[in-house]
Amino acid sequence: MTPEIEKILAGDPLAGARLISLLEDRDPLGIELLKVLYPTTGQAFLIGITGPAGAGKSTLVARLIDHLRARGLRVGVVAVDPSSPFSGGALLGDRIRMQRRAADRGVFIRSMGARGLPGGIGRSAREAALVMDAMGYPVVLIETVGAGQGEIEVSRCVHTTAVVAMPGTGDEVQAMKAGLSEIGDVFIVNKADCPGADEMVQMMERIASHRRRAPDAWRPPVIQTVAVQDRGVDDLVDCLFEHRRYLESTGRLAERQAGNRLHFFRQLVVDMAATRLLQDSPELASIQKELGHGGIDPYTAAEKLLERRLPV
Amino acid sequence: MTPEIEKILAGDPLAGARLISLLEDRDPLGIELLKVLYPTTGQAFLIGITGPAGAGKSTLVARLIDHLRARGLRVGVVAVDPSSPFSGGALLGDRIRMQRRAADRGVFIRSMGARGLPGGIGRSAREAALVMDAMGYPVVLIETVGAGQGEIEVSRCVHTTAVVAMPGTGDEVQAMKAGLSEIGDVFIVNKADCPGADEMVQMMERIASHRRRAPDAWRPPVIQTVAVQDRGVDDLVDCLFEHRRYLESTGRLAERQAGNRLHFFRQLVVDMAATRLLQDSPELASIQKELGHGGIDPYTAAEKLLERRLPV
Repeated sequence: MTPEIEKILAGDPLAGARLISLLEDRDPLGIELLKVLYPTTGQAFLIGITGPAGAGKSTLVARLIDHLRARGLRVGVVAVDPSSPFSGGALLGDRIRMQRRAADRGVFIRSMGARGLPGGIGRSAREAALVMDAMGYPVVLIETVGAGQGEIEVSRCVHTTAVVAMPGTGDEVQAMKAGLSEIGDVFIVNKADCPGADEMVQMMERIASHRRRAPDAWRPPVIQTVAVQDRGVDDLVDCLFEHRRYLESTGRLAERQAGNRLHFFRQLVVDMAATRLLQDSPELASIQKELGHGGIDPYTAAEKLLERRLPV
Repeated sequence: MTPEIEKILAGDPLAGARLISLLEDRDPLGIELLKVLYPTTGQAFLIGITGPAGAGKSTLVARLIDHLRARGLRVGVVAVDPSSPFSGGALLGDRIRMQRRAADRGVFIRSMGARGLPGGIGRSAREAALVMDAMGYPVVLIETVGAGQGEIEVSRCVHTTAVVAMPGTGDEVQAMKAGLSEIGDVFIVNKADCPGADEMVQMMERIASHRRRAPDAWRPPVIQTVAVQDRGVDDLVDCLFEHRRYLESTGRLAERQAGNRLHFFRQLVVDMAATRLLQDSPELASIQKELGHGGIDPYTAAEKLLERRLPV
């Protein structure tokens, strides 16, 4: 075992942060380290927190950290900000709010942009969560801004997905309802002291009831919170652990873990194949040149490259 | 030339719809037809309309159609609804509003979900737009719900990207500003009769001013519209064509077209490689079985598959 591996297994935050950076940069050394660590993972309770911008997710995550710490649990947080694919930037105010907790050694926070290819969000977030899992954090929260693919990806990385909405965003929630009813294990109406809270709770109840029915199916609860006033957050923590116990007692935890692992494998295959196929090569250069001159259409060009590199 | 190709070139809506369905299903016949049609494309003015759910994009698109028709232009519309990745459903009310125009033979509307892999949105939307281009529509609008990757993908399919916001969604816009300033060619504050319109216009002006400066750089205008009252829409059409003329006169149109074509090629390479690698095969089955038993980690599993199928 290398000293770096030992440090990560001992929970050293600097070593953890270094490894996450290596993985974000797709550094082969990062992958080698994570392969060694992989057998130690699978212990953490992975919770996804997703919802539209402005729903107060970051404040809610900050409060969740407080309550989990009060219960004696160390907490890892992966905050994915897909809003800045070019800059890799993040919402400074929200991050600072959370970083107040960073002085506490029981909390490890990593925020990341959504640079690179679509789907890149999922890979980097999952890798950061794996590192925190290896570091021994019993709970890891993954916070993502949801709208379309984002929340689906996060649901495939975690055990429990909490969907956050706020009053007055009915249109937005309505637009996402099919996806939300599939992925939401716990629904949260935050800012529940604002006008329209009851309507939003009712809408969420309807969405929760669309869940596929099975005799022992989980009925997703709808929780009201006012994160800035720390109201409802302890109930939320109870619900998250209740869902965890449900997954364990029904054998669905192992099922989800296997499904998530398979999804991650397939994501890695596509990601690594893209890197191999699109890295500079004389073949790629000559095909792209032909494409640039209009001598070939994009389909023929793609088939040409694949015939050489990846025959059926 | 096959009769099917002739029909599409003649603008036959049924033949066009059939081809788009074939392409959505990734039917090899669809790709063969599109390869034949490809040299006839590149004539349409492709316009992306993106923004958060609830900003009134569909109503705005309906009004844009009216104004473009009044100017004697036939219009194709690709409406991407990424909110329903599982069901492939769409917002019925909005769609019905637009379908009123469907009785007009000068308008061709196709709406699609965002099924399948992340990034799938981009491919299907672009293919539908290519078909409409081949059918002879001089203007094709691509409407997508934006938040993160979505609007970046659409900007890589079109010539001009219009970003729509509404008053009171400052947090959401703020969260996306880095991306928006890169991709927005025209900014729209819709529902400009609602409280907070001035603040949103100012925010959009600031975002527009973050655009990279070059001596002949385009300065994205900020347009106020009230789509339900048909206010500001004619100005918007003027702005869109002004941007088109700017791209033509500076040589940037050819540059964008080449960049978009290259991006599409690379997307096709990854997409087709994923299909080849992840289709049922004894190799894949045995690796996935090993992964399921926990005998191998996902990285090693992915590398194993790629070593056999796609050696470096």
